[in-house]
Amino acid sequence: MPHHKSAQPPRGSLGEFELIQRFFTHPLKTGSRVRLGVGDDCALIQPSPGSELAISSDMLVEGRHFLSTVDPARLGHKALAVNLSDLAACGAQPLGFTLALALPRAEATWLNGFSKGLMALAKAHDCELIGGDTTQGPLNICITVFGEIPLNNGRSQALLRSGAQPGDDVYVSGTLGDARLALEVFRGSVQVPAPIFEAARVRLEQPTPRVALGQALRGIATAACDISDGLSGDLGHILERSGVGATLDARQVIQLLGVKRYPVNARGAFDLERALSYVLAGGDDYELVFTAPPQATEAVTAAALATETPVLKIGTIDTEPGLRLWDGDGPPKPLNPTAFDHFK
Amino acid sequence: MPHHKSAQPPRGSLGEFELIQRFFTHPLKTGSRVRLGVGDDCALIQPSPGSELAISSDMLVEGRHFLSTVDPARLGHKALAVNLSDLAACGAQPLGFTLALALPRAEATWLNGFSKGLMALAKAHDCELIGGDTTQGPLNICITVFGEIPLNNGRSQALLRSGAQPGDDVYVSGTLGDARLALEVFRGSVQVPAPIFEAARVRLEQPTPRVALGQALRGIATAACDISDGLSGDLGHILERSGVGATLDARQVIQLLGVKRYPVNARGAFDLERALSYVLAGGDDYELVFTAPPQATEAVTAAALATETPVLKIGTIDTEPGLRLWDGDGPPKPLNPTAFDHFK
Repeated sequence: MPHHKSAQPPRGSLGEFELIQRFFTHPLKTGSRVRLGVGDDCALIQPSPGSELAISSDMLVEGRHFLSTVDPARLGHKALAVNLSDLAACGAQPLGFTLALALPRAEATWLNGFSKGLMALAKAHDCELIGGDTTQGPLNICITVFGEIPLNNGRSQALLRSGAQPGDDVYVSGTLGDARLALEVFRGSVQVPAPIFEAARVRLEQPTPRVALGQALRGIATAACDISDGLSGDLGHILERSGVGATLDARQVIQLLGVKRYPVNARGAFDLERALSYVLAGGDDYELVFTAPPQATEAVTAAALATETPVLKIGTIDTEPGLRLWDGDGPPKPLNPTAFDHFK
Repeated sequence: MPHHKSAQPPRGSLGEFELIQRFFTHPLKTGSRVRLGVGDDCALIQPSPGSELAISSDMLVEGRHFLSTVDPARLGHKALAVNLSDLAACGAQPLGFTLALALPRAEATWLNGFSKGLMALAKAHDCELIGGDTTQGPLNICITVFGEIPLNNGRSQALLRSGAQPGDDVYVSGTLGDARLALEVFRGSVQVPAPIFEAARVRLEQPTPRVALGQALRGIATAACDISDGLSGDLGHILERSGVGATLDARQVIQLLGVKRYPVNARGAFDLERALSYVLAGGDDYELVFTAPPQATEAVTAAALATETPVLKIGTIDTEPGLRLWDGDGPPKPLNPTAFDHFK
């Protein structure tokens, strides 16, 4: 039945208030920009003078963004990680987040695991839970995250998708394709040894948002985007917004593959074409793709070292629109994103 | 199947990008505090210097917070209204909001209605849609809203639940109980003539957030809360947070009833006890309950007049904890919130 905004907590032994108190309330840190957290009609934030706020929302739905069998602690981690990844892509420092949670039942064991995974990542990034909502309903996790970016002489330093210039280099952080490999194992389309699966599964279920790298790239990168839907699609956002194209070196791109030597084909040999698909259109990677001019190469390397984040140069921005792949032999070939539609 | 964060739009003829473009993208106003809206990894806001941000999140689930048959335009209105009501309770001026939407299907007719209702209320309050997320899943609407409150010599002016003082008067805006009357008609527990039902139904489906009144009460009210779960429960939040109690005058409280002379009992006579229950514990009212010292009576009246919002004084804050109802005869009687549990 339709009813009040928040009078009806999830069914189970825990009421809404008890649920929030027990799992999601914590004392605010001294000196925090968050002046008032969970418990009033609104939370209050006083942003640092001379800064702007970056804001992003993501909604995760059971059966679509995660398996119902996933470890709740990993799910709590991932729900915040995908949002922190958006802050990273803008070069913002995490400040706080709201959590809205629809639950079929209020199960203490599940909530305990979920809140542990969530709050551990929040603590690691100094990102405070400032408010939210809980209700009974099909499992749905909606997080809105807030970060700060200092203005530079009144000008925005946010990394946008729109700043890539012809001649810029294209970089990617970390590794790609592992999450997709794990997903395909779950789907039964490929098989890998158990240790390989476990390693890939951690990337799928507990991605690492590149928060420190994003901030270190302020003033260096000309454009950035986080890779949530796959490299080709997310780099495509940069190209479209910047009105440019790009040519990627296939020999570099394949180096991005996290789990080496997999997937294998029916004869047990490394399946290069499929691996390339995972890297280019795997999804759920939560790495950063960004551009920077050649004269910034050393600065990019320094940012990568300072934040202990691997970064690989994989191509170049062109004036000609579209995305091309060059295998080191002959002219570059157009990379058609719909070539990977059989995965979707 | 579990999959990427946002690669899978709702099933239907519209892809995620087209859906956002068509229904939810709009040019930012010149001079807006919102520097970047829908379309990048994050939205960017530059708050006014010397202000703080108020933030609130609400999640609405089909079958729990609204009927599946509700007019989508009214639902769009209500989804934002319940969030604006939280800003109102803090005295904040609306700035912007994010919208995360899980839809079983991407139906153009439904989306058209929903976005019209949503965007009309957003426009009326100068509250810009700055970002969000869409996905396929059981219908779920999660809005996070941001408002601004100017600091006064560096001090917060936000209306909190915690500031009520013994001797303060207790006020309520507008009318209460209408939404509950409509809900009970839907449930079949009461019957009313069609025009009465229509009037009550508008209050249930298209509540009016008291945004202007909330801002006008800055520096006047000592505490405030929006009434979403019912007057007794939400005033109870103020009492608990402020460490005080309150005595309400039943003869004033009953004046708050919006639709007069209903509900009626089996003999067709006005059912006073039931009506009082609707007013005290109806829910979904989205009015403000607030406190102010007796010397602020004229200022409260002026704020009500300036914002064209009816306001009624219904009682007094006491040192003795708990909520009491006085019917003008004999001692006040304790008002036990669980007395209304048969409605829940």
